[in-house]
Amino acid sequence: SDTLKIGSRAFRSRLILGTGKYRDFEEMKASLEASGTEIVTVALRRLDLSNLGQPSLLDFIDPARYTILPNTAGCKTVEEAVQIARLAAAMGLPRWIKLEVIPDARYLLPDPVATLEATRLLIEEGFEVLPYINADPILAQRLQDVGAVTVMPLGSPIGSGQGLLNLPQIQIIIEQARVPVIVDAGIGAPSDAALAMELGAAACLMNTAVAQAGKPPLMALAMKQAVEAGRAAFLAGRIPRSAYAQASSPTTGVVSYESATNR
Amino acid sequence: SDTLKIGSRAFRSRLILGTGKYRDFEEMKASLEASGTEIVTVALRRLDLSNLGQPSLLDFIDPARYTILPNTAGCKTVEEAVQIARLAAAMGLPRWIKLEVIPDARYLLPDPVATLEATRLLIEEGFEVLPYINADPILAQRLQDVGAVTVMPLGSPIGSGQGLLNLPQIQIIIEQARVPVIVDAGIGAPSDAALAMELGAAACLMNTAVAQAGKPPLMALAMKQAVEAGRAAFLAGRIPRSAYAQASSPTTGVVSYESATNR
Amino acid sequence: SDTLKIGSRAFRSRLILGTGKYRDFEEMKASLEASGTEIVTVALRRLDLSNLGQPSLLDFIDPARYTILPNTAGCKTVEEAVQIARLAAAMGLPRWIKLEVIPDARYLLPDPVATLEATRLLIEEGFEVLPYINADPILAQRLQDVGAVTVMPLGSPIGSGQGLLNLPQIQIIIEQARVPVIVDAGIGAPSDAALAMELGAAACLMNTAVAQAGKPPLMALAMKQAVEAGRAAFLAGRIPRSAYAQASSPTTGVVSYESATNR
Amino acid sequence: SDTLKIGSRAFRSRLILGTGKYRDFEEMKASLEASGTEIVTVALRRLDLSNLGQPSLLDFIDPARYTILPNTAGCKTVEEAVQIARLAAAMGLPRWIKLEVIPDARYLLPDPVATLEATRLLIEEGFEVLPYINADPILAQRLQDVGAVTVMPLGSPIGSGQGLLNLPQIQIIIEQARVPVIVDAGIGAPSDAALAMELGAAACLMNTAVAQAGKPPLMALAMKQAVEAGRAAFLAGRIPRSAYAQASSPTTGVVSYESATNR
Repeated sequence: SDTLKIGSRAFRSRLILGTGKYRDFEEMKASLEASGTEIVTVALRRLDLSNLGQPSLLDFIDPARYTILPNTAGCKTVEEAVQIARLAAAMGLPRWIKLEVIPDARYLLPDPVATLEATRLLIEEGFEVLPYINADPILAQRLQDVGAVTVMPLGSPIGSGQGLLNLPQIQIIIEQARVPVIVDAGIGAPSDAALAMELGAAACLMNTAVAQAGKPPLMALAMKQAVEAGRAAFLAGRIPRSAYAQASSPTTGVVSYESATNR
Repeated sequence: SDTLKIGSRAFRSRLILGTGKYRDFEEMKASLEASGTEIVTVALRRLDLSNLGQPSLLDFIDPARYTILPNTAGCKTVEEAVQIARLAAAMGLPRWIKLEVIPDARYLLPDPVATLEATRLLIEEGFEVLPYINADPILAQRLQDVGAVTVMPLGSPIGSGQGLLNLPQIQIIIEQARVPVIVDAGIGAPSDAALAMELGAAACLMNTAVAQAGKPPLMALAMKQAVEAGRAAFLAGRIPRSAYAQASSPTTGVVSYESATNR
Repeated sequence: SDTLKIGSRAFRSRLILGTGKYRDFEEMKASLEASGTEIVTVALRRLDLSNLGQPSLLDFIDPARYTILPNTAGCKTVEEAVQIARLAAAMGLPRWIKLEVIPDARYLLPDPVATLEATRLLIEEGFEVLPYINADPILAQRLQDVGAVTVMPLGSPIGSGQGLLNLPQIQIIIEQARVPVIVDAGIGAPSDAALAMELGAAACLMNTAVAQAGKPPLMALAMKQAVEAGRAAFLAGRIPRSAYAQASSPTTGVVSYESATNR
Repeated sequence: SDTLKIGSRAFRSRLILGTGKYRDFEEMKASLEASGTEIVTVALRRLDLSNLGQPSLLDFIDPARYTILPNTAGCKTVEEAVQIARLAAAMGLPRWIKLEVIPDARYLLPDPVATLEATRLLIEEGFEVLPYINADPILAQRLQDVGAVTVMPLGSPIGSGQGLLNLPQIQIIIEQARVPVIVDAGIGAPSDAALAMELGAAACLMNTAVAQAGKPPLMALAMKQAVEAGRAAFLAGRIPRSAYAQASSPTTGVVSYESATNR
């Protein structure tokens, strides 16, 4: 009953996984299964279309089990991103797109202006657009204004595993959001994922933290548990932070050990 | 097979719960069940021995399911703590003790010197001692030298929900430990618990974060998942943190979308 | 000799102060003096032009001592910001502008797209433009591409005093910058200002932290010292952070106290 | 008039410097001068008493300008520390002692129990004792109870330059203190020193951050400024932290630019 709705689609799992950087396809497949994910994102530019007879990434993703979310990783401009989205649609993939417009190779940070423009264009073409953005609350608002079905702020640079460095601004984005907010990039460990969910993120997307872990399927399971834990905590209502201690045991009205031992 | 060993006892669950501050005993009972815990800690000074006919805390803790860990909460001196431990043993409770010697009412921080002395005395009397301490690595060593079966550094003041403020020193304690390290106090949300476990803590102990949550049983479940997630991540091996981005998608040797679309 | 160059202007002080929120003009004047600042920024929309015979903010800012930096605080759109900049020029103020385009009243966060557009327009009109931005490294690059003479990333929301929450991204902006980077907004205490400067910020801009301090002129002096301290540390080269201790005293090749006392 | 009183002594400077790890004595001397310090701490075990004709560390510390604070660095036990303190007194050095009892070579963390015991013994022998401690508020209280003239909690391990990792507990120590609190160890940059002073520390002690900086005398000057900045800010009263933005410019009752331009 606690459903994640992204545009026209609905899911129970709140963990989205990428498909890059695994040691091999078998390990990827096992990790996807352990994670319980229902959405896997695929970089169109990673697909090797030149060897159609060979095993391909897509052969290891069961379309009955997972919804593929094409992404535009590797695109530096509006034009490239739009073209990749069209290519995905032409291949028969679902008509939604994780939009990345990334001119910078070192930190892989997205371009806010180009991302807004590409979002507009792709929505006009009938795509459901999930833009990957820096944790900029105003940009998040403008993307929602033009019809993005989610916003995907980054916690820290892709693959850096630094966690939620942008947390305070992600909190503002969540507070103001009219669509689900998905934290994407920077998650390095389950504690990062749990924290994002506790604060009200609707889902987490990750890749490197699982694919490059020592044991990816076990880490995928850990991430599943952490996302569920964070979601449950969000629904359960955490205690406030306090500067002082709060005794777990009442200090008045109890029988002290003196009276107890005098009994 | 991944067993938590504390002195002579062994457990599968790595989550230890307190029994104070619940709204009522029924909610406590439901929370304990949801948490999967096998150890519950009880403040001897909280027990009301004056109304033996009335329902008591202990009536709601199934001894077949949970091992009771008596604690000395509310004791300010060595003498008080030792006396409470003896009382617990006299009541037939298991002969181990979570040792708290806390002279300070505002922050509920433990006394390092008195804790070391009480640990020595109680070990001589045959107790297995689990001392609650500030995150002081040298004190942790000295407690292990005299035979403590664990050390229980605090993340932040009891009930404050501030999380692992003492994290760097807890890491040193874990690195140098010859016994399991249990993080006790300060955990406010599942992300805190996951983080402690990821760093190699053997278990987490908490009370307020569950008992005072909006929905305690749901939070108890969240904590169970988070502790398991953190433990799995510790075993799986997390990715290193990196200052820079690491592309999830390879940037060389791939067929670019240009060649793909020209096909 | 350690000069701050912003566009066509050069300064020795690296502390820029705002003029809002002081209890009265006298206190503002004393604070400006104590701070050693050479640049004071004035919100054009704050100027009360209806009472030309009355004492005005500008009467308390000695133009021989301070260069006024007009700003567009209170502007929500490109059009408003451009109009305010023109107004400043028409009043004979220096033809540079601290550009703020802020649609959001709660967090006062700037609009990245509108800021880039207004920057372009104002540069075409001959202004030197100092845009106030979220700590978005790609936006910072694009602003430099169109000719901004500095970029002014925010540490945390205006007036919040939360310090440098966006520090990791400010570091990336500094690393990639071709113009001086000025940290603007969020500084609450001298330690925040020192930190920004240690990391290579060229200057700090602040208002609330001084104007709303208990004793503004004393805080202004503190900020002056902190900015100088941080700049000196940047030039002096700080020690690296280390996970372990580094003994201040050598542990080999020294005469031990035993031999010394046996002498 | 803002005097630092430690036991029977009074000082204007609130920066205390160590004398280890400089590249040479000349650089140390220049750094001490630039820092404005009035107290320099010397590790007795570092003194080479075997070459009395050769230039020694003490030749470079003008006793008319600086008060020497002997320390027990390198001592692992109560006995060693007491013996070193006596040796210092026998050499005619001032009868106060920075007490370090450090059994651990990797993190150089102090022993709480041995430190308390050595403090008691040395006070009985007429020393003014300045104990170096982990940031343990209860230990700090007990040391004050037995007569320590200050407590010197560490921010992070000696020489690590990690800053004030123990900040929350240092705040508690300051809040409860009856003597001046001196932050000792871990300071890596002026921002760390400023932060400690802003929170009410009475002074900062450091060594590696200056001695191993690229340019020690310039860093010494930076630290002087930072300590003064932090102290001034403490006296001036910083603004509170706020979750939301606080406009620097009033948003009501001002003449808007529209009316201004219509004039």
